[in-house]
Amino acid sequence: MQRILSTQLAAHPHETVLVAGWIHRRRLLKSVAFLIVRDAAGLSQVVVTEPSVRARLEQLTDESVVEVVATVTPNEQAPHGVELTGPKIRVLSAVAEPLPFELHRPALAASLPTQLDHAALALRHPVRRRALRIAAAATAGFRAGLTEQRFVEIQTPKIVASATESGANVFRLDYFGRPGYLAQSPQFYKQLMVGVFERVYEVGPVFRAEPSDTGRHLAQYTSLDAEMGFVGDHRDVMAMLTRTLSVMMATITEQAHFATPNVPAEIPAVHFAEALRIAGAPGDEPDLAPAHERALGEWALREQGSEFVYVTGYPMRKRPFYTHPDPADPAYSNGFDLLFRGMEIVTGGQRLHRYEDYLAALTKAGEPLEPYRGYLDGFRFGMPPHGGWAIGLERFVARLTATANVREVTAFPRDLNRIAP
Amino acid sequence: MQRILSTQLAAHPHETVLVAGWIHRRRLLKSVAFLIVRDAAGLSQVVVTEPSVRARLEQLTDESVVEVVATVTPNEQAPHGVELTGPKIRVLSAVAEPLPFELHRPALAASLPTQLDHAALALRHPVRRRALRIAAAATAGFRAGLTEQRFVEIQTPKIVASATESGANVFRLDYFGRPGYLAQSPQFYKQLMVGVFERVYEVGPVFRAEPSDTGRHLAQYTSLDAEMGFVGDHRDVMAMLTRTLSVMMATITEQAHFATPNVPAEIPAVHFAEALRIAGAPGDEPDLAPAHERALGEWALREQGSEFVYVTGYPMRKRPFYTHPDPADPAYSNGFDLLFRGMEIVTGGQRLHRYEDYLAALTKAGEPLEPYRGYLDGFRFGMPPHGGWAIGLERFVARLTATANVREVTAFPRDLNRIAP
Repeated sequence: MQRILSTQLAAHPHETVLVAGWIHRRRLLKSVAFLIVRDAAGLSQVVVTEPSVRARLEQLTDESVVEVVATVTPNEQAPHGVELTGPKIRVLSAVAEPLPFELHRPALAASLPTQLDHAALALRHPVRRRALRIAAAATAGFRAGLTEQRFVEIQTPKIVASATESGANVFRLDYFGRPGYLAQSPQFYKQLMVGVFERVYEVGPVFRAEPSDTGRHLAQYTSLDAEMGFVGDHRDVMAMLTRTLSVMMATITEQAHFATPNVPAEIPAVHFAEALRIAGAPGDEPDLAPAHERALGEWALREQGSEFVYVTGYPMRKRPFYTHPDPADPAYSNGFDLLFRGMEIVTGGQRLHRYEDYLAALTKAGEPLEPYRGYLDGFRFGMPPHGGWAIGLERFVARLTATANVREVTAFPRDLNRIAP
Repeated sequence: MQRILSTQLAAHPHETVLVAGWIHRRRLLKSVAFLIVRDAAGLSQVVVTEPSVRARLEQLTDESVVEVVATVTPNEQAPHGVELTGPKIRVLSAVAEPLPFELHRPALAASLPTQLDHAALALRHPVRRRALRIAAAATAGFRAGLTEQRFVEIQTPKIVASATESGANVFRLDYFGRPGYLAQSPQFYKQLMVGVFERVYEVGPVFRAEPSDTGRHLAQYTSLDAEMGFVGDHRDVMAMLTRTLSVMMATITEQAHFATPNVPAEIPAVHFAEALRIAGAPGDEPDLAPAHERALGEWALREQGSEFVYVTGYPMRKRPFYTHPDPADPAYSNGFDLLFRGMEIVTGGQRLHRYEDYLAALTKAGEPLEPYRGYLDGFRFGMPPHGGWAIGLERFVARLTATANVREVTAFPRDLNRIAP
């Protein structure tokens, strides 16, 4: 007999069917017992009255995997309006010990470290599953939105020869007896690929040896990177990002059945200097602190009715060497951040594209040129004006689901203290 | 003026348009000069007759990035049936030096090492671009095929605590002062996620500190991983893989405009013992050598008219500990490989799913249990019968495009000798 899913039961009234899944819960009442079976789609309620089956059920344990052959019986009180009666139960995989925490309550009662220690179990909880489904839908929407704008997907190296992009917070590894480093972003490679496809994106892991143990940092996270050529300036990049975000939100609503906020056709944008003023920060601050970001998020919602706000024109001295300056005021950059509900979830901007500008920027930064040779090749051999962005997937999902800690929306997080499971 | 692409020119006869791209080639004849501009979509032919523009053109260099405003003039001889006349040319980015190799010939003349050293340039060649477009389409097809079969996309850790899965060929790194390792596959994590979503897939980098310098090995490659629960045995997995491959091929044909071979509805499958006989190998060989794989590929094409062939029932002693044995003959496994044109491009199989079977398998392998604690949790807390596979993307594309070396279909390959660019 072909297995069907819990959500398909209602289409088979009075038929004998096979369902399979995990024992989500048992309720052993005096005259009747209920077995709740969880599968990928949802829950099925199995009604047990026969004494021998009940005796069997009493010995079963939560999370054991079972197959149930039974009759679909309409019952308005049951999930999906049907329950399964007259069951025969076969155990595929028995759990021999009590669970470290229960899965059938609305929230996981265990502490976060305990949940993470037992990730294989905790991730089965509906709230944890939902976050990962949203992440999958966000990623699918990212790809769909960019594919229809003729971006091409790329895969780039995660092992690099030098800690060039920021220098700090890099993981060092032994690469066939030589030093190697884990890539902190696909930045250099996606820029080079603009020379090949004009518009590219990558979804992949990035690595930060981040020594701070906060709710918004991970040692590995998923970066949704895009880069596009033939832009006027950073505003073309922001327009493409806004459009992509709206496809991501629509895809999340459709595939993960989760209500998403409106993405305005034009997201409000404030210049960095203005952002400092709004946040009540001193005018000579070089960057926005988390408290400033929160204040800006509140301002955008209150004054502009938007849960998103761009901050543009970050000072050049706080942006990486490849950042394009603002032609009107070269102390400021054509770089931007996107804040979502008061937290930075995207960094982007226009990049330098002329070879001589790269030579000057690296020289000014006191950097040797040799480690950048392969990167500089891209500009030496002709690159159009271009820019792009990187969305931190876990931060994005955490903000969207109002989850305090990114670890709660990551399947197997990596941080300062955690490398397993 | 809004830029249009080379492929859109034919829709704008006699109009003044803006195109932009790289100088692919110049032909300076006596009475007329031609400028061939390359953009993401293709080539545009610009006709230069005016002496001042010609003088300008003579000073330009290949791969410089230009904008051209000109009139679209029908000409049956030109690409897409149109050429651009009366051009005004603006340089966005000038190339100041000769290229290390030419891009406009049908094949790259430079040696492979030279191409790889200058990847930013070499990847612009049509043949190299085509391979990467095929890779992107293959990946899109993999996702589409699995999504419609209710697989959920996952992202898993690339840094792991122990070199558990195979022990050899692992990259070791410094993880906040402790040892860490780069994941050789998402195997353990995708299995655990079967407990969450039943069916999952991941597209991501995997790392092998492979000491052999061959045309089929990379230190980092892209693995297309899938895993599914509630299977009868490995044959359910093979049926899903076959179906997925046919969606991949259809997507490649559609998105990358590349002719793909037929994927039979049922790909021929031979048992390992039979495979040895067909390949003319001794009956006690524990594995298939590349020459055996080639012989099997020839046999499948000749006898079964298929470019694909499954080999099933590999000996247990050559498969990893989590492999499910063949219940009828436990010396053999429910593991399989898929050969495509005589090369293994997929490894898969049914896995163990009972906790006690894992304890027995690890004990038999002489492995300590502690490093596997987080992994074993998945089975301790209930796992259905399951199996899956991993496709090596670069090998797949190399076979499909009849490319000898996987480095030719990888954007920035990593190997024993190469960590840059």
